[in-house]
Amino acid sequence: MKHARIIFEGKTHAITAEKNAGMAADGVVSLSDGRLVDEKDVIWLPPVEFGTIFVLALNYADHAKEIAFKAPDDPVVFLKGPNSLTGHRAKTRRPADVAYMHYECELAVVIGKQCKHVPKERAYDVIGGYTVANDYAIRDYLENYYRPNLRVKSRDACTPIGPWFVDAADVPDPMNLRLRSWVNGKQTQDGTTRDMVFDIPTLVSYLSGFMTLNPGDVILTGTPDGVSDAAVGDEIVTEVEGIGRLINTIGGDELLD
Amino acid sequence: MKHARIIFEGKTHAITAEKNAGMAADGVVSLSDGRLVDEKDVIWLPPVEFGTIFVLALNYADHAKEIAFKAPDDPVVFLKGPNSLTGHRAKTRRPADVAYMHYECELAVVIGKQCKHVPKERAYDVIGGYTVANDYAIRDYLENYYRPNLRVKSRDACTPIGPWFVDAADVPDPMNLRLRSWVNGKQTQDGTTRDMVFDIPTLVSYLSGFMTLNPGDVILTGTPDGVSDAAVGDEIVTEVEGIGRLINTIGGDELLD
Repeated sequence: MKHARIIFEGKTHAITAEKNAGMAADGVVSLSDGRLVDEKDVIWLPPVEFGTIFVLALNYADHAKEIAFKAPDDPVVFLKGPNSLTGHRAKTRRPADVAYMHYECELAVVIGKQCKHVPKERAYDVIGGYTVANDYAIRDYLENYYRPNLRVKSRDACTPIGPWFVDAADVPDPMNLRLRSWVNGKQTQDGTTRDMVFDIPTLVSYLSGFMTLNPGDVILTGTPDGVSDAAVGDEIVTEVEGIGRLINTIGGDELLD
Repeated sequence: MKHARIIFEGKTHAITAEKNAGMAADGVVSLSDGRLVDEKDVIWLPPVEFGTIFVLALNYADHAKEIAFKAPDDPVVFLKGPNSLTGHRAKTRRPADVAYMHYECELAVVIGKQCKHVPKERAYDVIGGYTVANDYAIRDYLENYYRPNLRVKSRDACTPIGPWFVDAADVPDPMNLRLRSWVNGKQTQDGTTRDMVFDIPTLVSYLSGFMTLNPGDVILTGTPDGVSDAAVGDEIVTEVEGIGRLINTIGGDELLD
């Protein structure tokens, strides 16, 4: 089952993908009460309430090389603030004074059960489901030893996530999913979760080895190579096979609130 | 007014310091209904529900020098997970296989109002109050370019905080408070918030310049020099003048849950 949350006429609605099979094509969203509404009148929220947001750096060797690092010996994980999340179809601001802001297509793994010290062979037991994240970064600010700093990765609305939360039971092999991005219709990223440096069981085992994981905690598992600078007005599509197609546009300083 | 939260006989109680003036001396906690209970029967919680936990690195030049860095040009801020928080009198685990784990006495600034783009001269308007944090770090794990990694600073219960939340109105000059730590009664840290590299208004203005701050978000403002290795069995006291005296003991692998 695929679940999402939208706002329509000021109210939050839980919707399912089964009733929205044709949505992407025809711009119509089906509410749970059967009403069909124009997607233009809808605001997509992050599909579930997220807790701690873990993000992998350098978890695809080709991308690590692309940004001038070697792949690390241990998982390199940092945290994002909840303010950084936004939904499908939202705008992300590119400040006028930055030189380089890139998107990153990522599989997001959502924890389903409170857990600690999870061995790799039981990691999938604690996963509730999956969604898609676009983990924007502003490279201008990557200047110091403590990185990435919050201006790079925790700006308001710099992490579109969704549209769908897909139950783990409906994803038979999360380590074999294609990830792709398109900028204004032109494909730029084309990778596979098979190429993660540290696979999903390793990540769950590593993190739960020293901290309690809770339902709603989410692990953004890193991005393959192919990232590029995003300009104001660009439409960025990030897709993970079978999980969802997340669309987002780049705004400018008019989004400054 | 000073507020805290405790658990007594399985129930959470909000208490105030006015009724607990003699508490530290006599080990008695006064509940709001007038009952006096033995502090040994009480579990102290973090004094409020915290949101995003911001932590300053290298925000006292003497401490930056002590750990072999120069003071930074911009605030260096990272995030902790909520799992890392624990209360007054709690134990923090020192894993058997680490070589160096140090405490850090810090003034914690708690945001009281949702805000963005706060100019320095209005920063105190958005602050709700203050508490004390002890921001433990395991230096063994400070090995890579992306630092500090989560094993250093986000382990379960590695951040005692409290005991009291003190209303901002009762802290006339938070930039002039003495910070001290004691290990088994011997003083090791003795600094003042006057020596912050980036002062409280600068930190609030910096963070709110690119992200929304919300009530309950907390900024751990850094520590002066004098940190040292903490051993299993040590009693660590971290005190900020007028805010509180936070006591914590170091446990070993028997705390592994």
